[in-house]
Amino acid sequence: MDVKTKILKAGAKIVLEKGFFDTGLAEVLAAAKIPKGSFYFYFKNKEDFGLHLIDYFAERLMASTSKIYRDESLPYIERIRSVYGRQAEAFSKGDYKGGCPIGNLAIEMGDRNDRFRTKLNQVLETMKKRLAGHLARAQELGQIKTRIDINQCANFIISSWEGALMQMKVQKSKSPHEIFDKMIFGQLLR
Amino acid sequence: MDVKTKILKAGAKIVLEKGFFDTGLAEVLAAAKIPKGSFYFYFKNKEDFGLHLIDYFAERLMASTSKIYRDESLPYIERIRSVYGRQAEAFSKGDYKGGCPIGNLAIEMGDRNDRFRTKLNQVLETMKKRLAGHLARAQELGQIKTRIDINQCANFIISSWEGALMQMKVQKSKSPHEIFDKMIFGQLLR
Repeated sequence: MDVKTKILKAGAKIVLEKGFFDTGLAEVLAAAKIPKGSFYFYFKNKEDFGLHLIDYFAERLMASTSKIYRDESLPYIERIRSVYGRQAEAFSKGDYKGGCPIGNLAIEMGDRNDRFRTKLNQVLETMKKRLAGHLARAQELGQIKTRIDINQCANFIISSWEGALMQMKVQKSKSPHEIFDKMIFGQLLR
Repeated sequence: MDVKTKILKAGAKIVLEKGFFDTGLAEVLAAAKIPKGSFYFYFKNKEDFGLHLIDYFAERLMASTSKIYRDESLPYIERIRSVYGRQAEAFSKGDYKGGCPIGNLAIEMGDRNDRFRTKLNQVLETMKKRLAGHLARAQELGQIKTRIDINQCANFIISSWEGALMQMKVQKSKSPHEIFDKMIFGQLLR
């Protein structure tokens, strides 16, 4: 692993636990076992690090879902469905700590820093476009309703999923995912 | 306004802006123009204040929606619908700063403090029960589908709404509400 990725990986873990604002650079450097000088070789300052971290979170998320979308043993719509099922499973195994780093940072940093807000919005737009692409594919294959706006569905699924994660966190239960699954895949898209 | 409410009101404004963890008691007391001694007459400590604040947020939210539910000029389902429309309107007018205090605290404090998590969960349970009651009423009146589980719908609406608020915050746009409105009231419940 290169030094930059080492710093981002260590930072990602801490920021997911305690948020960005209260994460000190010193603890990120200690966790990554990197001297201060190396940090400033890769990042201008803490803000710049945070903006790179958003990309890192998004890339990790997309890499893990890409694998699921390539699983040819499942019908396309079931691949989409299992993206959320697997996340719910992992969230449950981790006792519902953390959650969606993008959603958490949106709530924490949206009002505090306009560069973060803009970056988070860009990342969400990319995620919605990708999801809309997957929904369009499932629609072509006749696996979801034909009379439904794919882009609006993608936006709505992201909203519903982010809120479901929030509820799972305070309930410490998978039930909001089960309801999300039933409403989106059992009702809305069918 | 009594002293306790004065403290809660001043605290609510600050906490909605910057979160609970980073809110200092000194700034709450300064904003409420209250000496420290008065604070400790009403609250054991900052945590106790935070737990009361969650109730205060919930009561304010419920008071504002109760008014809408009494509006006899609207069909019952349109009253439910306009609860979200009005919140979206207010959020837009405030440049999408703040958002849902319950959702924000769930993200911020859910992992940090188990008393907060439990309290937030209780408040969300109450909100879902009330919403389910309103949906049941609309169902009796024939204004929504009969073959739909009202409790699951209430849970799902809360998820979708919390996520829509998150997206509105980073997009600085009402479009996630418009999509929420169309998907919930135009498709799911109809």
